[in-house]
Amino acid sequence: MEVENKYLAVKEYVHGQPSDSNFELKTAPLSFTLKEGSNQVIVKNFYVSIDPYQINRIKDYSSSQKAANFSSQLGLGQRVDAFGVGMVVASVNPEFKEDDLVAGLLGWEEYTVVHPGTILNKITDEFPLSYHVGVLGPSGLTAYAGFFDVCKPNKGDKVFVSAASGSVGNLVGQFAKLAGCYVVGCAGNKNKVDLLKEKLGFDDAFNYKEEADLKSALQRYFPDGIDIYFDNVGGEMLEAAVANMKAFGRVALCGVISEYTGTGRRAAPDMLDVVYKRITIRGFLAYDHLQIYDEYISTTSDHLRHGRLQVIEDISQGIENVPSAFAALFRGDNVGKKSVQLNENKRV
Amino acid sequence: MEVENKYLAVKEYVHGQPSDSNFELKTAPLSFTLKEGSNQVIVKNFYVSIDPYQINRIKDYSSSQKAANFSSQLGLGQRVDAFGVGMVVASVNPEFKEDDLVAGLLGWEEYTVVHPGTILNKITDEFPLSYHVGVLGPSGLTAYAGFFDVCKPNKGDKVFVSAASGSVGNLVGQFAKLAGCYVVGCAGNKNKVDLLKEKLGFDDAFNYKEEADLKSALQRYFPDGIDIYFDNVGGEMLEAAVANMKAFGRVALCGVISEYTGTGRRAAPDMLDVVYKRITIRGFLAYDHLQIYDEYISTTSDHLRHGRLQVIEDISQGIENVPSAFAALFRGDNVGKKSVQLNENKRV
Repeated sequence: MEVENKYLAVKEYVHGQPSDSNFELKTAPLSFTLKEGSNQVIVKNFYVSIDPYQINRIKDYSSSQKAANFSSQLGLGQRVDAFGVGMVVASVNPEFKEDDLVAGLLGWEEYTVVHPGTILNKITDEFPLSYHVGVLGPSGLTAYAGFFDVCKPNKGDKVFVSAASGSVGNLVGQFAKLAGCYVVGCAGNKNKVDLLKEKLGFDDAFNYKEEADLKSALQRYFPDGIDIYFDNVGGEMLEAAVANMKAFGRVALCGVISEYTGTGRRAAPDMLDVVYKRITIRGFLAYDHLQIYDEYISTTSDHLRHGRLQVIEDISQGIENVPSAFAALFRGDNVGKKSVQLNENKRV
Repeated sequence: MEVENKYLAVKEYVHGQPSDSNFELKTAPLSFTLKEGSNQVIVKNFYVSIDPYQINRIKDYSSSQKAANFSSQLGLGQRVDAFGVGMVVASVNPEFKEDDLVAGLLGWEEYTVVHPGTILNKITDEFPLSYHVGVLGPSGLTAYAGFFDVCKPNKGDKVFVSAASGSVGNLVGQFAKLAGCYVVGCAGNKNKVDLLKEKLGFDDAFNYKEEADLKSALQRYFPDGIDIYFDNVGGEMLEAAVANMKAFGRVALCGVISEYTGTGRRAAPDMLDVVYKRITIRGFLAYDHLQIYDEYISTTSDHLRHGRLQVIEDISQGIENVPSAFAALFRGDNVGKKSVQLNENKRV
């Protein structure tokens, strides 16, 4: 069997905000006949993950490009690899057989040829398949590892989360509530703020775009200071949070989206505060915390089964809409986990 | 007995660089007759410590002023409390008797009345008394705790120290060498650089004032990156170090002297580096690490006995020279531990 595989390739590097023009939708024939011994698997992709970090791979230069394989620069014309969920349609790998449901490093394309050594895990259909790019995928692990392993919360801690309605932030806030913390989130419009307070159980939330002075805003929401700041945005918000941290406060740096497009200015937190309040600012990547992967999956699945975690998803349709879905992330248009559904969760 | 006690009081708050005009030398009669039950002790001060952090106490406002007792703001007209070494000349405290040698929180004055609850420890004369404001005092504990407890060095780690000829920096570099690390320091003139390389055993050192681009300079000295940066200065040096850190690098923030006088700009390290290189930036204060105090004193004393640590001191004479000694710190004039000798180490 052979299909016409549609895939997205990098057309030109991003300067500032990404747009459709950075990508090109291409088509290439793909044969399902795999060479014995190659251990390859072909996956028909159902959902692909849309994540902010991809922007740093689609730049002339970013210091992040040397950090890890998943963050390496993409060449012009190269297909975009990305986390996804799908079904095995061909396999010469003894670990996978046709019709297996899988999640792993796939791509912004309808079918992916997965080479041995690439992350690919079998999954079940206990939960909606899209969960495996979100709450049960890298976003969930990032939130869980970042919050529990990096922030080391204590019951009663005052927790602040930025980009709190985003894929990671909304889960951090919910994990924090489940851990007995007091949680305030910020987001960029009223609907998101309402979602945080009304649906996700945040103790409070605010629209940062309506605050003239972020430092004063945080002082209002945390009159006694912040124990934990889970930072997804960097820039001025990071400065304001550091100014409002308590002694021995922990800042987990998950991402700095406000600095990715060059529109916001770089954070210059007051290092005098960092010294005297003995603050720890720590950058992390989820995949350094795989030792808690099993705990994360079992705990999170259990929360889902018992309705203790709300799953917020923002799903676009069709490979041709991946570029606009990606661009929308940087305008803050998404609510919850952004992904694109490529096929109708069917093998054929 | 009664003496005329000379002491320094704050005259006006510092704006920019400190100078003699920020202080006033005053005199007040002091009776050695203490009230029974008051548990007070009078110490004749031999050496008083001159430390950069004091500048933040002598400002209209600094975020550090709320952090800890020792860093609280000094009122106008108030005497300056400071670490020092001296001899007990009067005591109604059963733990101290006349002629005891002591180190603790004394002041920029010839005699200090020490109230119960204030840090005051008996010392011996095994080492020169001045060591107890330096290598065996707060500077030493800061270097030891900051390096071992905060930076968590491994043998072979590449260590960078700024203000490396200063009271803390020179000890960090020497501790790092004793721990089997590769150590490069920076300082502000050729004599200091020579001292680091020739007397203190640093693997290399450079004069940061001769470097047009600190980021490139560090790349030259650490072609494979920095594991540990012990930061005493903040500002551009912190940015340059973060850009040159290795994955999982640790930055111990001990002080940010370049930012104290408002002459340097605030550090805006690239937080994308912090995320992707999983860097930890951690502020600390020595007195949070008292659990290693005994280990620090015994290890350091042992190094001193065996000549494995060089002691670099810069001692001025006389209470009237404290303000100029303090101002000189911010011009980088001192080499090693700056202190002022107030009396001739004699009781009378």
